[in-house]
Amino acid sequence: MRHLIDPLDITMEESLRLMDLADRICQNPAAYQDVAARKKLATLFYEPSTRTRLSFEAAMLNLGGKVLGFPDAGVSSATKGETVADTIRVISCYADIAAMRHPKEGAPLRASRYSRIPVINAGDGGHSHPTQTLLDMLTIRRRKGRLDHLTIGFCGDLKFGRTVHSLIKSLARCEGMKFILISPEELRVPDYIIHEFLEPKNIPYVEVRSLEDALPDLDILYMTRVQKERFFNEEDYVRLKNSYILTESKLALAQKDMAVLHPLPRVNEITLDVDNDPRAAYFEQVQNGVYVRMALIMTLLGLKDPITGEVAFEC
Amino acid sequence: MRHLIDPLDITMEESLRLMDLADRICQNPAAYQDVAARKKLATLFYEPSTRTRLSFEAAMLNLGGKVLGFPDAGVSSATKGETVADTIRVISCYADIAAMRHPKEGAPLRASRYSRIPVINAGDGGHSHPTQTLLDMLTIRRRKGRLDHLTIGFCGDLKFGRTVHSLIKSLARCEGMKFILISPEELRVPDYIIHEFLEPKNIPYVEVRSLEDALPDLDILYMTRVQKERFFNEEDYVRLKNSYILTESKLALAQKDMAVLHPLPRVNEITLDVDNDPRAAYFEQVQNGVYVRMALIMTLLGLKDPITGEVAFEC
Amino acid sequence: MRHLIDPLDITMEESLRLMDLADRICQNPAAYQDVAARKKLATLFYEPSTRTRLSFEAAMLNLGGKVLGFPDAGVSSATKGETVADTIRVISCYADIAAMRHPKEGAPLRASRYSRIPVINAGDGGHSHPTQTLLDMLTIRRRKGRLDHLTIGFCGDLKFGRTVHSLIKSLARCEGMKFILISPEELRVPDYIIHEFLEPKNIPYVEVRSLEDALPDLDILYMTRVQKERFFNEEDYVRLKNSYILTESKLALAQKDMAVLHPLPRVNEITLDVDNDPRAAYFEQVQNGVYVRMALIMTLLGLKDPITGEVAFEC
Repeated sequence: MRHLIDPLDITMEESLRLMDLADRICQNPAAYQDVAARKKLATLFYEPSTRTRLSFEAAMLNLGGKVLGFPDAGVSSATKGETVADTIRVISCYADIAAMRHPKEGAPLRASRYSRIPVINAGDGGHSHPTQTLLDMLTIRRRKGRLDHLTIGFCGDLKFGRTVHSLIKSLARCEGMKFILISPEELRVPDYIIHEFLEPKNIPYVEVRSLEDALPDLDILYMTRVQKERFFNEEDYVRLKNSYILTESKLALAQKDMAVLHPLPRVNEITLDVDNDPRAAYFEQVQNGVYVRMALIMTLLGLKDPITGEVAFEC
Repeated sequence: MRHLIDPLDITMEESLRLMDLADRICQNPAAYQDVAARKKLATLFYEPSTRTRLSFEAAMLNLGGKVLGFPDAGVSSATKGETVADTIRVISCYADIAAMRHPKEGAPLRASRYSRIPVINAGDGGHSHPTQTLLDMLTIRRRKGRLDHLTIGFCGDLKFGRTVHSLIKSLARCEGMKFILISPEELRVPDYIIHEFLEPKNIPYVEVRSLEDALPDLDILYMTRVQKERFFNEEDYVRLKNSYILTESKLALAQKDMAVLHPLPRVNEITLDVDNDPRAAYFEQVQNGVYVRMALIMTLLGLKDPITGEVAFEC
Repeated sequence: MRHLIDPLDITMEESLRLMDLADRICQNPAAYQDVAARKKLATLFYEPSTRTRLSFEAAMLNLGGKVLGFPDAGVSSATKGETVADTIRVISCYADIAAMRHPKEGAPLRASRYSRIPVINAGDGGHSHPTQTLLDMLTIRRRKGRLDHLTIGFCGDLKFGRTVHSLIKSLARCEGMKFILISPEELRVPDYIIHEFLEPKNIPYVEVRSLEDALPDLDILYMTRVQKERFFNEEDYVRLKNSYILTESKLALAQKDMAVLHPLPRVNEITLDVDNDPRAAYFEQVQNGVYVRMALIMTLLGLKDPITGEVAFEC
């Protein structure tokens, strides 16, 4: 049995095989509609997240499976002092697989150690959110036809944004990538990302302040939200939140086939006039998220692809 | 693709066809038990409402469909500042149809403009609640055998009660209706209802203060709750909440085949001794609500009635 | 139609037949996977409880049924002043069976009087929690092979713990039982339990203060949590919560085939080193809870066991 706690828990080869499966699902969803019949997914959300929770639930329902769980900690036994270790042992009696979001870093990892069912980390604090990384990579591959030799810009809050950290770490395993890190000084990417993941492999990167200067060079622009809840004081938030807003007029500086990604929800960092630009890929990401979660659930449950007769990778 | 945001979004002809379908479902629910197999309903409740949410969910489950969603805003991404426009675009990737309740008037309309799936307004502030109107009309038709030439009394809070406004507007399209509006001065029906919907068509109406005086003339009595949350100060609420209480002894003044409707939940505006009176129709309304929502979901999804081989109306 | 509100609503004979069914389900779950197809369970939780709610939901899903409901009072119509009597009449239009948890004693009983569908009490305040009692008895029977001639120790909070009261009352109907009641003076079992259920039948019992002294004599040790929410002041809680903690070293005093039960969630009253001891039966209880709830739902719905062709008992 395997879990998915950190994006690097699966190799790039395995990730690619998951994406292949997601592509097949996208092309023929009806072929997969009963694959997980009678299986149950538990969604354990100690912190609310409509998008991610409902994406997992839609994925499981699309596979013919069933869903139970809780949408926030207030309706869970956490309020009675139960540990995640005990909770997952209980949930192991109720479901075949679990997706857990938790405000505390490491909680899903700890749960996985006591679990009798596969655990998927659906986001733990500022730490990891591996299915977001998978859907980001799937969207990039679909838009550009490859996951190598790409120049990728990350823009906005690169300090607290876990989706950015995870995606950089994952893409650092691909050939010929170049990263342009666009942020205010206060929100630069943490040094450990650079020292542990980019420099050892001599992956080219540059840290810049101006979105507009960077735009012409990018194959992919990954925008992020400046999350109010990550700031310690209101003043810093107000000063920085309007930095790095992408507008249709700025987009004129970009390549015609660049793709704009965003983990959502957005507040105002991408203006509404960008939504109809063909480069906007952020709602495609949502759809791809369902497909890649379907692929992941199938794989962790050991369910064979009815088209190929194989599992994406062994668990 | 069509949405149902306002009760007047569908014609009376279309409403009658929906009610016909609801009647057929009621007579033979088993014939409809797989009609929406593999379809998914999203219940997006930014304001809690057990009755309405669970009615939609029961309707979808009765059709063999599946359900996902959130029961209040606290567990949704709304708290992260996401607009309903973005939320519905996300939900469009997860579900085939959505029911939305929102405290802000116009939110479901706005959502529908960005949606790739049909949106049903499940109540927006004091504004509209079109499926309540449909179930009210269905209940009246079932009880009286017709939706014309009826004298209908509305009693209680006619100012804030959206169910009252919607039902008056809808019934104003029927022949030979007469309205008796029974309320304290402070809670009279808004002038626009009278000026825009009754007077232009010369529909007879009268505004009165006494429930007992009005009772003998009524074919239908529509009671409403005096909702605490609509008042600005406690004192007004306390003074008025006990006005217009229907008791079994008052019911002695009414016709033997009058029907008492109430949108529920009631607090004390209908005493418990009325519950066993055959004129009490308010729990029938709940059951009819499931049938009419089944009919509506089928129709907005373009699903044919397996008995007639037709959709109730084209969408 | 029957409800299950109090553990004593069903006879010991009926309880044993439910446990027999639960055993058959455990041995061959696939035989039961469509038994409740198209049936709907409503989970009405006016007080959050992940474990119990999800156990009911897993049970219904395992039977091929469907689930709707609410996970706490905040998302229910209770906040609008609706009575449980009205709520259950509404829910009777939506579902085929209901499980209700409520902070107020007697609420499920009151609901059952107005219900058109079977109601299962899923815990009402400090009062009853009959499915917990059933799963406790099932676990004891599985571990010891019988439900008679056993020495059972209850340890911890015997004053407020409803699971303890219910289990004592139920087991008092079996032959040859002996109870050892281990608690601090402040948390002794209420007098009425002794006067009404033990003394009239001359059932041997002893009240002691020391867990260690009692351990060697026990066939079953039922540990309980010292629930913070039951205390009136913090000081009492802090002083007592660490009393009666079971550790692996204390377990050395116990018989090799004793079983340790706990209703969960635990805080620290059983240390983690006990979890791997073969005598630890508290996670088995969770699994048994699913089986016994499956058996109960089937029986209250009048569904025949596909293996025996019979219902567990007539309703």
